[in-house]
Amino acid sequence: QVRGAPAIALLGCLSLAVELAGGAGPREDLGALEEFVGQKLGFLLTARPTAANLGREAERLRAFVRQRAETPGVSPQQLRESIIEYIEGLLEKDRSDNRSIGAHGASHILGRVAGGGPVTLLTHCNTGTLATAGYGTALGVVRALHERGSLSRVFCTETRPYNQGSRLSALELRHDGVPVTLIADSAAAAAMRERGVQAVVVGADRVTANGDVANKIGTFQLAVAARHMGIPFYVAAPSSTCDPALASGRLIPIEERPGTELTQLGGVQLAEPEVDVWNPAFDVTPHELITGGIITEWGVFAPSELSQAL
Amino acid sequence: QVRGAPAIALLGCLSLAVELAGGAGPREDLGALEEFVGQKLGFLLTARPTAANLGREAERLRAFVRQRAETPGVSPQQLRESIIEYIEGLLEKDRSDNRSIGAHGASHILGRVAGGGPVTLLTHCNTGTLATAGYGTALGVVRALHERGSLSRVFCTETRPYNQGSRLSALELRHDGVPVTLIADSAAAAAMRERGVQAVVVGADRVTANGDVANKIGTFQLAVAARHMGIPFYVAAPSSTCDPALASGRLIPIEERPGTELTQLGGVQLAEPEVDVWNPAFDVTPHELITGGIITEWGVFAPSELSQAL
Repeated sequence: QVRGAPAIALLGCLSLAVELAGGAGPREDLGALEEFVGQKLGFLLTARPTAANLGREAERLRAFVRQRAETPGVSPQQLRESIIEYIEGLLEKDRSDNRSIGAHGASHILGRVAGGGPVTLLTHCNTGTLATAGYGTALGVVRALHERGSLSRVFCTETRPYNQGSRLSALELRHDGVPVTLIADSAAAAAMRERGVQAVVVGADRVTANGDVANKIGTFQLAVAARHMGIPFYVAAPSSTCDPALASGRLIPIEERPGTELTQLGGVQLAEPEVDVWNPAFDVTPHELITGGIITEWGVFAPSELSQAL
Repeated sequence: QVRGAPAIALLGCLSLAVELAGGAGPREDLGALEEFVGQKLGFLLTARPTAANLGREAERLRAFVRQRAETPGVSPQQLRESIIEYIEGLLEKDRSDNRSIGAHGASHILGRVAGGGPVTLLTHCNTGTLATAGYGTALGVVRALHERGSLSRVFCTETRPYNQGSRLSALELRHDGVPVTLIADSAAAAAMRERGVQAVVVGADRVTANGDVANKIGTFQLAVAARHMGIPFYVAAPSSTCDPALASGRLIPIEERPGTELTQLGGVQLAEPEVDVWNPAFDVTPHELITGGIITEWGVFAPSELSQAL
């Protein structure tokens, strides 16, 4: 069990590294080992339909394996070891990408907010140390602002129905001493108006070629509210979240999850078990609502610029 | 324990009737009995700050008591009995007002939706038989459309943090055979876009002179989303919800409730008990977002027309 688009990608690849380190797969034949890796990645890709990162990492890993397998003189054992090493490197790369996202995002937000801070932010779901290799994407921006002494407060939505905001974001931010206030998802627009929220920063599960963003259900609603209030709306995501092969967000498959996530909570029955429930795990925010920009490890881009920039 | 602005008003007045029927208060003096009733009403008014209905009913009841006390020949016992009778009449009036609200709302919505129905609605919180004397305000409109065979489906938000949507609205609509789908509060905008919602109908705790509406937290956010999607947004409320003495919604006192409503649920801990929580029970929707109208027992009015119409 794992959640968070970057963490899904990392754990997927690491599980393959663990298998390879344990001796799984062909030992005598380069082509057979390459095919084994391809099959395992193909299986992992069926786990969750919405997030892009695992697909992108799998594509890059396949290209790496192909290149190494074609290098003259490489033995199957050397190929195996280089795949494991490559995958271990992804962990460190994710952490350093997140630090870059945090730095770019913090500077961009401080540049837009009058007076240069301290700023009050609002975020959704969990995009921190428990969704990535560490530091976080949207929460990486929050951390970077806090490290610079430029964060006044961050409001975290509880993020129903799975409560990643209450269970994870509030927990990890409190653990790091970041000033955090938990709110109901329904209180987000009121917090923007009544509590001085100056920017909204969320993560992403997939960004399409036109800059549309799939992210946790409720993100679209927050973007609409931010636009109404004139507050910049940012998406923080590593470049591996981008899926330039998809033209627009309308083409992203949206995972629908069991109704029991809404009708039950830790054994407590919240509604009749037979009630009809619509429980999409994600929604799509159209690019025109991402008024702040998309924060990547390479800088902050307007949604329309992102594909070309990457 | 009681919730729902009309039910709060009714139960407050009925509790006074029960006291009077049980022999409480002065028995020999008209003026003393009038003062006793006034003091009891004053105490009841301190219970919940946001809802207007109890205040309005108390004002009308005081005027009725004054008028009866000044009627020549009335004995203290007759005054007592007429107060009890007046309060019992409020129950029946609320039910018939709700039926009128349902009829006016259903006709107005069908008139605006192309083809005259069947329509798909979205509602928030609970405004039905468990918030009124019966039938309901926003849920009265839902019931009226269903009775006419003109309701395709109604989406109910779960309405965190107190889950009136999951616990009450979904329950009472299913009980009546109304096609209902439960969604997370965060899924409302996505439901409007992806599931064909044609109008949003909510209740109200207080409507000010300029047509601003205080209602369950999240109402403002729904109104912003409806406006963005071009879907009419209706508020259904009896005239006793209106408070013409307040110029605008900015003057409405908003009740803030304990953080434990967000951090705990039926003994399940959802967040660290020490986390900072902002938990306003209501928010204010500015009149310009109420694009459908305010549905009262006397008809449907634009927010700007309401005060004069009443």
